[in-house]
Amino acid sequence: MRIAICPGTFDPVTFGHLDIIARAAPLFDRLYVAVLENTSKRPLFTVEERLELLREATAHLPTVVCEAFSGLVVEYAARKQAHVIVRGVRSALDFEYEVQMAFMNKQLAPDLETLFIPTSPQYAQVSSTLVKEVAAFGGPVDQWVPAAVGERLYAKLRGKEGAKG
Amino acid sequence: MRIAICPGTFDPVTFGHLDIIARAAPLFDRLYVAVLENTSKRPLFTVEERLELLREATAHLPTVVCEAFSGLVVEYAARKQAHVIVRGVRSALDFEYEVQMAFMNKQLAPDLETLFIPTSPQYAQVSSTLVKEVAAFGGPVDQWVPAAVGERLYAKLRGKEGAKG
Amino acid sequence: MRIAICPGTFDPVTFGHLDIIARAAPLFDRLYVAVLENTSKRPLFTVEERLELLREATAHLPTVVCEAFSGLVVEYAARKQAHVIVRGVRSALDFEYEVQMAFMNKQLAPDLETLFIPTSPQYAQVSSTLVKEVAAFGGPVDQWVPAAVGERLYAKLRGKEGAKG
Amino acid sequence: MRIAICPGTFDPVTFGHLDIIARAAPLFDRLYVAVLENTSKRPLFTVEERLELLREATAHLPTVVCEAFSGLVVEYAARKQAHVIVRGVRSALDFEYEVQMAFMNKQLAPDLETLFIPTSPQYAQVSSTLVKEVAAFGGPVDQWVPAAVGERLYAKLRGKEGAKG
Amino acid sequence: MRIAICPGTFDPVTFGHLDIIARAAPLFDRLYVAVLENTSKRPLFTVEERLELLREATAHLPTVVCEAFSGLVVEYAARKQAHVIVRGVRSALDFEYEVQMAFMNKQLAPDLETLFIPTSPQYAQVSSTLVKEVAAFGGPVDQWVPAAVGERLYAKLRGKEGAKG
Amino acid sequence: MRIAICPGTFDPVTFGHLDIIARAAPLFDRLYVAVLENTSKRPLFTVEERLELLREATAHLPTVVCEAFSGLVVEYAARKQAHVIVRGVRSALDFEYEVQMAFMNKQLAPDLETLFIPTSPQYAQVSSTLVKEVAAFGGPVDQWVPAAVGERLYAKLRGKEGAKG
Repeated sequence: MRIAICPGTFDPVTFGHLDIIARAAPLFDRLYVAVLENTSKRPLFTVEERLELLREATAHLPTVVCEAFSGLVVEYAARKQAHVIVRGVRSALDFEYEVQMAFMNKQLAPDLETLFIPTSPQYAQVSSTLVKEVAAFGGPVDQWVPAAVGERLYAKLRGKEGAKG
Repeated sequence: MRIAICPGTFDPVTFGHLDIIARAAPLFDRLYVAVLENTSKRPLFTVEERLELLREATAHLPTVVCEAFSGLVVEYAARKQAHVIVRGVRSALDFEYEVQMAFMNKQLAPDLETLFIPTSPQYAQVSSTLVKEVAAFGGPVDQWVPAAVGERLYAKLRGKEGAKG
Repeated sequence: MRIAICPGTFDPVTFGHLDIIARAAPLFDRLYVAVLENTSKRPLFTVEERLELLREATAHLPTVVCEAFSGLVVEYAARKQAHVIVRGVRSALDFEYEVQMAFMNKQLAPDLETLFIPTSPQYAQVSSTLVKEVAAFGGPVDQWVPAAVGERLYAKLRGKEGAKG
Repeated sequence: MRIAICPGTFDPVTFGHLDIIARAAPLFDRLYVAVLENTSKRPLFTVEERLELLREATAHLPTVVCEAFSGLVVEYAARKQAHVIVRGVRSALDFEYEVQMAFMNKQLAPDLETLFIPTSPQYAQVSSTLVKEVAAFGGPVDQWVPAAVGERLYAKLRGKEGAKG
Repeated sequence: MRIAICPGTFDPVTFGHLDIIARAAPLFDRLYVAVLENTSKRPLFTVEERLELLREATAHLPTVVCEAFSGLVVEYAARKQAHVIVRGVRSALDFEYEVQMAFMNKQLAPDLETLFIPTSPQYAQVSSTLVKEVAAFGGPVDQWVPAAVGERLYAKLRGKEGAKG
Repeated sequence: MRIAICPGTFDPVTFGHLDIIARAAPLFDRLYVAVLENTSKRPLFTVEERLELLREATAHLPTVVCEAFSGLVVEYAARKQAHVIVRGVRSALDFEYEVQMAFMNKQLAPDLETLFIPTSPQYAQVSSTLVKEVAAFGGPVDQWVPAAVGERLYAKLRGKEGAKG
């Protein structure tokens, strides 16, 4: 069985992520979309929220399983018996960063390969960070994230403001 | 009337920014130099200070208007009836980041174009961040910022130290 | 009057070029699309053919004028009283090459500015060279060039084969 | 059955190519290493020679089949019922070029995915072109190509000199 | 006497740093490896710890002197009568950032040259940041740092956890 | 004695090359500026002409010796007992190409280091190729090459035209 993992923060999932997941899924018997728990990035959404949004958005892809994980990605891959890490790459800049990660992982787990899929041009400029910035100013985000994600994003941001006031 | 905006943090304005502003100004009937208020970058100077330094440095450019704005840059552009966002680009790295912003803005406001002007070589290595670092160590900054900015920068940094002591 | 030139080889014109021309046109009172005659690139199409294809493809843009030119681009710009060179930029790689040209032109003609417009994502991967390669193998090119260009491209390539046989 | 193709010029095959082939092979049921016949690059070795060297160097990989092809890579992939094109990527510069090819191929064949594998660091600086340059000056090439390739390379270059004399 | 400095944060020293130091040392009569004290990066190790680890790892290099410094690197270089700053460069991305620093330093001290040494391929993907991340999750780091550094790294991370509990 | 070589095509020498040579010279006891004879680039100037122009332009630098060489650069360096190759780097793009060369040379001659000096910003956009293009169209080149080079360049280009007629 050919198993791959697609790790990320997914805070929140965008059409850019979904483009990669939908294109990678048919290439493997199972694709684990793995939400990183312990991150220094201070996510807006909790792991549970990020997972729920991912599951909704990938419900039509039968071989995709969404999970949370903590610790080293190579250890998670070993637990899942995965031989491949899939990463979307949007730009030459992304590529340089991803290569660095790929080779440190390769040295930790020599049989695990990282494959890069170039993000489709129409989504290559989308980033979770910029989506959150636009939403924070009340701008529309439906071109970049599924409707359910957009709603949850606005609800979240309103909640944060309420909490402050 | 051809109207453009040149948004930024300008914390503080450098000769690199002024190079772009002076070269962009003649290409439009009006150029709004727009200081972003709500930024996650924790600026050293207040919006009022940054605006004042910009106004002094661009006083000789009759079509330049310096203003503060908050919220989405595309909404600010709409309020000003601007059709163009002007951005200076110093390097291939800058370019990648700027393209991402440009296309998200293009999707929010399809009639608004982002034009890139390559920073003149002699200023292409100047950044507000490095200028502040040099000043923090007492180094000279007059090659990178106008004299008035340099003075204010030293006064500010002394003030911060005083506040701590 | 605000006049710009958009120089290139256009061998042949693609939707990538047309994206830049259509977006740049409204920003100026006149936009000269200028086909470089004397190039070391050995174009497939003659200058006249390239011009004809450009004129057809830009017929709906009233302020666009297509012309051939030879010699230095800065001299052509001076003859046209243009203050701006417009160039589409598709990638960080393009950017580095374009910056080099922009500054050599700036040193030859200090009042002439080069403005970069980032090619829209859906056309950012199209190149005349790759289009010609696909056509040479009989592949479809209608996603990248106007129908008239595609027809002419196939006719041209058949003609070349006939000439060999 | 999961089938992939790994197209290239392979003039001649290097340890960089073999690194990618050996790492890609286990990820698919069959991997076609496909030597491009009709190239504008004027190869040093004939298609038959390049194929023979590739077959020797990949003889230990049971799922690898080396073949020549001409025409569009997407048509070759269709004939082989392949769903994946595998390409090694050595640098950010390579990446930009490869992305352009990948998306033009994607538009020609939407179900065919291009996957990038980053070349292992120790081989990421090797190029067939530089290997041929070193050999032309009589330098050692055994760090970059299999012994059989090195021998054939020297024989070839001596032959060319002989032909001139 | 030819004197160079090699400044950095070294939090902690990796085989990538040591590759640069060992290759740079023979090119000068003395090479000061200079640990930056006042950094905004919030280092994991104290200056004293970072110095101690560097001294151990460079003990076999007789012309290398490890020191701490604060303030501007150009002033430190002047105090040491150094004419050269040596910096390792791992990637095109690194290069862009380093060039910016190099020219600001050049403007502050016109006689001080910055020389870049490309990190050896096998170490070009190693970064102190990623090493710390791997160690934080209990992964092995002996491929990237000397044994003494690895031990200290684990002790430090355990200490931090203990301090929290 | 510390000896370095600075190899190149120098067709013709520009202020960009001279910037690197003048800054590198004080760092070594001798700097060989080495003109590559056997190049696939089809130079405009003969080796003798290129050498003569280099010698004139570097006459004020007592430790600089200009020579021609053919064959592998690592063998030339060995004959000169040089331990360092110096290369100017103008951009991230240059850097990627230079790194590839540097590591192939490093594998051929492990004790020979390649050091990169970033070209000064005002010369970082100058290239021999673009200078020749401008001169071919009769444009001024005195901002990029010494007066003697400019004269020779025009004479050469007139000569070529004469030869054709």
